Amino acid sequence: MQDQTPSDYITIAVDAMGGDFGPKEVIPALNMVLSGRPDVFFLIFGDQEKIAPYLSKYPELVKRSSVHHADIMIENEDKPSAALRASKGSSMRMAIEAVKDGAAQAVVSAGNTGALMALAKMVLKTVPGIHRPAIASVLPGIKGDTIMLDLGANVLVDGEHLVQFAILGSIFARAHKNVQRPTVGLLNIGSEDTKGPEHVRRAAEILPNIDFPGEYVGFVEGDDITKGTVDVIVSDGYAGNVALKTAEGVGHLTKHYFTESFSSNLFAILGGICAYFPLKSLKKRMDPRLYNGGVFLGLNGVCIKSHGGADALAFSHAVIVAVRLARGGYIDQVVRDIAHLTDQENTAPKSEE
Amino acid sequence: MQDQTPSDYITIAVDAMGGDFGPKEVIPALNMVLSGRPDVFFLIFGDQEKIAPYLSKYPELVKRSSVHHADIMIENEDKPSAALRASKGSSMRMAIEAVKDGAAQAVVSAGNTGALMALAKMVLKTVPGIHRPAIASVLPGIKGDTIMLDLGANVLVDGEHLVQFAILGSIFARAHKNVQRPTVGLLNIGSEDTKGPEHVRRAAEILPNIDFPGEYVGFVEGDDITKGTVDVIVSDGYAGNVALKTAEGVGHLTKHYFTESFSSNLFAILGGICAYFPLKSLKKRMDPRLYNGGVFLGLNGVCIKSHGGADALAFSHAVIVAVRLARGGYIDQVVRDIAHLTDQENTAPKSEE
Repeated sequence: MQDQTPSDYITIAVDAMGGDFGPKEVIPALNMVLSGRPDVFFLIFGDQEKIAPYLSKYPELVKRSSVHHADIMIENEDKPSAALRASKGSSMRMAIEAVKDGAAQAVVSAGNTGALMALAKMVLKTVPGIHRPAIASVLPGIKGDTIMLDLGANVLVDGEHLVQFAILGSIFARAHKNVQRPTVGLLNIGSEDTKGPEHVRRAAEILPNIDFPGEYVGFVEGDDITKGTVDVIVSDGYAGNVALKTAEGVGHLTKHYFTESFSSNLFAILGGICAYFPLKSLKKRMDPRLYNGGVFLGLNGVCIKSHGGADALAFSHAVIVAVRLARGGYIDQVVRDIAHLTDQENTAPKSEE
Repeated sequence: MQDQTPSDYITIAVDAMGGDFGPKEVIPALNMVLSGRPDVFFLIFGDQEKIAPYLSKYPELVKRSSVHHADIMIENEDKPSAALRASKGSSMRMAIEAVKDGAAQAVVSAGNTGALMALAKMVLKTVPGIHRPAIASVLPGIKGDTIMLDLGANVLVDGEHLVQFAILGSIFARAHKNVQRPTVGLLNIGSEDTKGPEHVRRAAEILPNIDFPGEYVGFVEGDDITKGTVDVIVSDGYAGNVALKTAEGVGHLTKHYFTESFSSNLFAILGGICAYFPLKSLKKRMDPRLYNGGVFLGLNGVCIKSHGGADALAFSHAVIVAVRLARGGYIDQVVRDIAHLTDQENTAPKSEE
């Protein structure tokens, strides 16, 4: 496939069949990404017949993509183990294999999360030295975006895993936020050294003493996520997932209160009409679709999971994350920094444990 | 002190000196609580000279309270251990002792959290059979309020601790929500049995097999907090605190977006004026002061921690939680249900572990 894409292009492999809507939302999403990005090319995997009617609406996208037929699609309900066995020739697996083969620099799918993680691990493998891949996402904050990880891939971790997550997250933040030395905090329940779970305190001992792409600033708390206190927040997958889902839930509650307050009576409805523009601006700023895209970090290739219910706008934001990471040379940096960490471990005087 | 309060009154002991504002906000808060509650009486602890000028403004409150002078106040900066040593004769300790002595049925303080927990544990002691006290709070949800615990008292817990939290939370929910058999969920990152941390899965094995005041419904996720899926959500203190702080943070972010959207230009400001009533209703519904009050559960007495920055409205809501728990006979129920749980453990066939 390599010959189809000029070598200075960013090539993104896309599973067109994943998610609740498949090509109906995925194809317009890809077209949205193209504008202003003349160097992006897509390899689209899926059922050619189902893709064609949507693709034909976008002549520019036709020129800047190639479609690769897949007979099989992995269903949302499939268990990861079953999905793995039946994955050969599926749109999801073919898209991941395109990254492995070097035909694409990143893959995006809105399909079954468990299957995507299992397939990505099997096909791409972890970067040498990385113990566990993690899921990261970009979250909005008052002072700016925060990269948060792990969001659910690893429930049980030790301090060393959190240190690796800090490295993975820092390199992601460099690519996404364009900062040279991102600030990193460990998610905890207070700022004192003696507080919090063992694995968090262990990571807090290690991080100030190693040379890594970020700058460790200490413990942060749940409200620091949306304050944007630091560029990267590191936690285990249990607390991280709880935080992410809680934030989503508060977003839904706010929307619910909003709707109720602005539809309670005629005056409220009229008030809402008068306040159309500020309300529209508010809605846009609080739009969770702009933060779609969970990134699997630590693999030999960039793999992005879009929300299954993503529409075109949401899916396009997951693709943009993929483009940023591909352009930032994410994987090369991870390989280099993890190797550097391993060197430090090998040359550092052993601690007493 | 008992003779000062008719015996069918609910008597609440109040530390008037705690928090950022002391009697200035605490005294008006107590007056707010009185209206519509003819059976509430307050024992106010603190510096009589500082309390008097505020109290004299509320003749009804003067009639329905007694002031008990304390020379000492525990500072926000004091470490719990130092606070404990110097606590004798402090307003916080005297208020807690009023509960121990049976003069009051509950105590409320906006003071130093660590000191309040340490003092409450020392003076009131835990209910026989309770391993660890927990901090609970009422959180708003679409379908109704949710009681959530633990919110930070216990970082490291096992399945048996979570089971006790489920019992404590259920009895709280009965008193607060007036439901006979509250539904209980365990905070996790998915609904499958095999997911999540060991202690959560262990509690999920025990809860369906014991007779307790709630109805166990399974795992819930972070977004279920604000959905109001269940009456009680149980977690360890790390995940619970992360969830609580994250929710607070999203609230702040929303407020920030709000202010920006409605002040960006003249049209936005005018729009905001037109939408005054729905915006006011929205602001009222999202007011975190209505959910002020962390309840220490598992002690031989009801102890409520108000937010340190609470104003009169916020403090009054913490006092209302105290009144509800005192009226609901919370402690008697806990003693009965924990004794019942212990009976079940003693008579149940031992599991293989």
